[in-house]
Amino acid sequence: MAKKFRVGVVGATGYSGEELLRLLKNHPGVSVTYTAAQTDRKKSIQELYPFLRGSVDLPCEVYAEERAAALCDLIFLALPHGAALSVVPGLRRRGTAVVDLSADYRIKDRQLFAEYYGIEQTDAPGLSEAVYGLPECFRAQIKNKRFVANPGCYPTSILLALQPVIQRGWEWRVPCVMDAKSGVTGAGKKLVESLQFAEMSGNFKAYKVEQHPHEAEITQALSRDGKRRPFDFVPHLLPVDRGILSTLYLMGLPVASEEELRAVYEACYSGEAFVKILAKGETPELKQVRGTNQCHIGLAWRKKTQTAVVMSVIDNLGKGAGGQAVQNMNLMLGFAETEGLL
Amino acid sequence: MAKKFRVGVVGATGYSGEELLRLLKNHPGVSVTYTAAQTDRKKSIQELYPFLRGSVDLPCEVYAEERAAALCDLIFLALPHGAALSVVPGLRRRGTAVVDLSADYRIKDRQLFAEYYGIEQTDAPGLSEAVYGLPECFRAQIKNKRFVANPGCYPTSILLALQPVIQRGWEWRVPCVMDAKSGVTGAGKKLVESLQFAEMSGNFKAYKVEQHPHEAEITQALSRDGKRRPFDFVPHLLPVDRGILSTLYLMGLPVASEEELRAVYEACYSGEAFVKILAKGETPELKQVRGTNQCHIGLAWRKKTQTAVVMSVIDNLGKGAGGQAVQNMNLMLGFAETEGLL
Amino acid sequence: MAKKFRVGVVGATGYSGEELLRLLKNHPGVSVTYTAAQTDRKKSIQELYPFLRGSVDLPCEVYAEERAAALCDLIFLALPHGAALSVVPGLRRRGTAVVDLSADYRIKDRQLFAEYYGIEQTDAPGLSEAVYGLPECFRAQIKNKRFVANPGCYPTSILLALQPVIQRGWEWRVPCVMDAKSGVTGAGKKLVESLQFAEMSGNFKAYKVEQHPHEAEITQALSRDGKRRPFDFVPHLLPVDRGILSTLYLMGLPVASEEELRAVYEACYSGEAFVKILAKGETPELKQVRGTNQCHIGLAWRKKTQTAVVMSVIDNLGKGAGGQAVQNMNLMLGFAETEGLL
Amino acid sequence: MAKKFRVGVVGATGYSGEELLRLLKNHPGVSVTYTAAQTDRKKSIQELYPFLRGSVDLPCEVYAEERAAALCDLIFLALPHGAALSVVPGLRRRGTAVVDLSADYRIKDRQLFAEYYGIEQTDAPGLSEAVYGLPECFRAQIKNKRFVANPGCYPTSILLALQPVIQRGWEWRVPCVMDAKSGVTGAGKKLVESLQFAEMSGNFKAYKVEQHPHEAEITQALSRDGKRRPFDFVPHLLPVDRGILSTLYLMGLPVASEEELRAVYEACYSGEAFVKILAKGETPELKQVRGTNQCHIGLAWRKKTQTAVVMSVIDNLGKGAGGQAVQNMNLMLGFAETEGLL
Repeated sequence: MAKKFRVGVVGATGYSGEELLRLLKNHPGVSVTYTAAQTDRKKSIQELYPFLRGSVDLPCEVYAEERAAALCDLIFLALPHGAALSVVPGLRRRGTAVVDLSADYRIKDRQLFAEYYGIEQTDAPGLSEAVYGLPECFRAQIKNKRFVANPGCYPTSILLALQPVIQRGWEWRVPCVMDAKSGVTGAGKKLVESLQFAEMSGNFKAYKVEQHPHEAEITQALSRDGKRRPFDFVPHLLPVDRGILSTLYLMGLPVASEEELRAVYEACYSGEAFVKILAKGETPELKQVRGTNQCHIGLAWRKKTQTAVVMSVIDNLGKGAGGQAVQNMNLMLGFAETEGLL
Repeated sequence: MAKKFRVGVVGATGYSGEELLRLLKNHPGVSVTYTAAQTDRKKSIQELYPFLRGSVDLPCEVYAEERAAALCDLIFLALPHGAALSVVPGLRRRGTAVVDLSADYRIKDRQLFAEYYGIEQTDAPGLSEAVYGLPECFRAQIKNKRFVANPGCYPTSILLALQPVIQRGWEWRVPCVMDAKSGVTGAGKKLVESLQFAEMSGNFKAYKVEQHPHEAEITQALSRDGKRRPFDFVPHLLPVDRGILSTLYLMGLPVASEEELRAVYEACYSGEAFVKILAKGETPELKQVRGTNQCHIGLAWRKKTQTAVVMSVIDNLGKGAGGQAVQNMNLMLGFAETEGLL
Repeated sequence: MAKKFRVGVVGATGYSGEELLRLLKNHPGVSVTYTAAQTDRKKSIQELYPFLRGSVDLPCEVYAEERAAALCDLIFLALPHGAALSVVPGLRRRGTAVVDLSADYRIKDRQLFAEYYGIEQTDAPGLSEAVYGLPECFRAQIKNKRFVANPGCYPTSILLALQPVIQRGWEWRVPCVMDAKSGVTGAGKKLVESLQFAEMSGNFKAYKVEQHPHEAEITQALSRDGKRRPFDFVPHLLPVDRGILSTLYLMGLPVASEEELRAVYEACYSGEAFVKILAKGETPELKQVRGTNQCHIGLAWRKKTQTAVVMSVIDNLGKGAGGQAVQNMNLMLGFAETEGLL
Repeated sequence: MAKKFRVGVVGATGYSGEELLRLLKNHPGVSVTYTAAQTDRKKSIQELYPFLRGSVDLPCEVYAEERAAALCDLIFLALPHGAALSVVPGLRRRGTAVVDLSADYRIKDRQLFAEYYGIEQTDAPGLSEAVYGLPECFRAQIKNKRFVANPGCYPTSILLALQPVIQRGWEWRVPCVMDAKSGVTGAGKKLVESLQFAEMSGNFKAYKVEQHPHEAEITQALSRDGKRRPFDFVPHLLPVDRGILSTLYLMGLPVASEEELRAVYEACYSGEAFVKILAKGETPELKQVRGTNQCHIGLAWRKKTQTAVVMSVIDNLGKGAGGQAVQNMNLMLGFAETEGLL
């Protein structure tokens, strides 16, 4: 067998870090050689994640740059927003390839980033080199690169649902309603009363209705060709652990039936391994993509209003985080894009 | 104590029937004197619902009109759509007051009803006398009447969320997006593979995206003053047993801020016991209305798009079915409207 | 209507406090006149619990003894273990009746209490006057008393399941296995990572297998007649919000069939409003007692081993906390025992 | 790469069939060449299971022996109890290797089988050749065999928890209490009202308390050395989709501490890839084995009663069905036992 690439996961104690390890342990082209977190859990990575038994046996270290760079060809950063800004410059100086799962390097407009995240983007050279890692939209730019900013979970579900329309150059005047619903792992692992089981079981609600940070990312992607595409993004919290369903309402598209719309979607995604356009009348379900790197897209046409309804589901920890990060790694390191993901 | 009214529940084995019994057992002005279903479960109502212990002790009979009418002053019909059409005429001939929880008498336009339900409305006199029982909108018409068609769960959540806007006579051109999410009891008790626990736990999906029967009811209510109010209604199924959250997106309203919108909503609902406008920044949650007859409404204003987001939650079995039915009974029989519901 | 007793709930922000308010608002003989907690949530009790709308409208105060005693005839204490010790003496000095839902006054043997709770019981006079509030076992002692220690949730489910056997004076040599399973509200509201929705959904486990504090209470109750009744109590945590099911295995009882055992159980509980012996072949379910003050008991006989299996379910917040506390209040204040609980 | 073995899954539409396909698609030594069910779903296997995208692309056929045997070297039968009896003889005559996941060939005593399953075991030659496929107990017998009866889910969790004790030849007089709790997929896919989401969410109960078919299997295994080991097995149904936790209470073992017991368990399982003895004080959790072929065992010692508490968890679809079936296949075909399972 060829020499394997050595990869590390920093932020291994969070949900995205866990999912990365689940995927990487079965990837034939890499070995996990380093796992770290910001705080010391004083447990090995196998004590934290018993499913690693028989595959990955490492301490879960407190992150240390020199050691990380020495042990890894590529490092996944699965840290809270803001934290990557102090880790990326050093790693890149040492030549380590990086996939950053935080928002820190996703937004090219530093003003916009500050407005939505309340954090100053302090690494201008890093920002200018970072590639936005949504392979179905920016595959060519990602290939063989050394630094990728992995997209957010909501933006992934939404941008994949809109890519066929954007690719055509279509714009719209009436704001596209993006009614999105996510499982609770999207909120990360910090302790919150409203996320305790006794509070969340049987519950459901919208949150951050007037402004959610992921809007910055959606705005940037939807305006990349200079077209006008207003939208209203409203996220909701589901009583499930993982999965995102986004329901999009598009008015004023230059199509007049579900068939016409479907043709556009099928053309755009024929040949894509991770996006599936469902058959007429089918609606996507969270469980059908659970644990996968797939995005399922359902289409419906509301005759009376001529509104196109586009529904997409992903696993927020899969295509919305760890799965997509591995897909990006595959493109960066020259593997088949689907390696370890089917 | 004054003599109590005698009430019956037909369709007692369904979820709405169960909720009716839970409410009626504590209502100080009525006695449950009759419980029936279409099929014989060969169990007493207390065996079916142990929570009735110490309050209601009756057989669960197979429905028989003469007996029902003899035992009851008022009967709640909680039967599948279509079934009330053969029960209502007889009961009304015998002078029994009726609250029908099915869709059979909700839609005045028989064409529209047939189109959405695939059922012919065969009882024209009954239909012309039936009052649509949404008290916050039609209180005066319901008072002291003998026959009320209880609204559907989705329409209740949506029409309460829109009443302040309709009351003002406002119309809109851009279709109002109504993205609604319901717990599974809304689908009733029939056995369906996709509703088995193993399938539904951790799952979420949209359904009947192009046309759901409840659109008929929403259409009728939104056009009652002859104004134009197009909409796109898309229901989703939540992995919870009860509760509905509807997220509505209104564009082009003659207001320019959340404050202006809020003033309209507060004015409309001041004095209403069962509708609560949440404070700025709050979003409604399923659990806060679970087991109640309340509707909570949250308001948000999306500055960039000038879109008003109106979110409402109800318990689909409470304000969306049994609770509202009791509220209607209170109005019909002359009780305080809140009796047995706070 | 007769003058209502004035009652207060201290610890109103916890799950037991919430359930108490849900019950008390509908109790015809009392008015809730005071709600307090140890920390200031800066919200009214109605903001915390929207279901109180139209019934209880009070600030949620920081507890202050003088004010509490002035406003209330009886106070429910729903505080963390240890906290009642500094509240009870003052309230009793001022003549306020008290139902304490904590463990502080349940265990007569102060040594035993210290061993299991790691807390010193510092109020000897209070302890000697406190009555253990399990009405089905100690009804006569509770009546008209001024200070009741409300039992724990696990002990309630277990002692009710064993009372028929104890009443007969039966003992046993082989330890009775008590395999108990509880919903998460039993753990209270403090933030714990393992109780976050993302961790607990789909999960299940045993905890405190070698020693759980509730053993002290079970030990005290099972040895009250000097008989020998060893046991192994192992609690488990269910992914549900409320409810306890205890499965008990009794070997060596002086019966030889399910029928004989059943006769003993039915004789013991005939006439009890809140305990129901299920029919042969039925097993108790959490959902059938959800939101009630009921305890359902199922019986089975394992022929090959001559083992009696006794299964009981309660709502841990109902019969296991708030419901039983109201039942005790009813006995203390002279109401019908079932008032407000059916 | 070496030629891959061709394997088929019959009963592919059930939960065990689904799990088998999830595992087999990533197994480097086999190709899935045939999928079938008893009834025609008129969908391809990929339409039924979208996670097969990119790996397995087959019709889901109606089972036909000749075709099955022609296409497969080994066939997994994941059919309802009783159905394998009419499939196995033909397949074995044609020389196809078989792993049967049903109970049909597990019980050597045909009387016992009839008593517990109400089915006559009609294939005596098959029964005498079938090997009981619990590798940790019967590895040598399974290796290179052509026909394996895969154990039941409850028996797997219980027998693994008892193997260290049985291996020592220890017996016991007091019945071992086996209080077991399973997720709902253990009940299969047939439609049952009590398993609908609206009924099962928030619920929990025991079932088949006096006699469950899996007792036959446990009885057979526990008496295989002629020793006396009575037990009381009581299964419960958890509101989770997958996982089994069995809590076992052993009295009268020839050990006097948790340390002594632990030494026995660690000795027995050192070197086993799929059984893990948890550290002192740890209790096993469903989620830690979800999706794996692992069995976690926790040990506790109740000093006052000298009772050993042994807790085991498995994924009922993993080590309790599909995972173990693949493990057996690995032994039968000469792969490393862990191939495709870590």
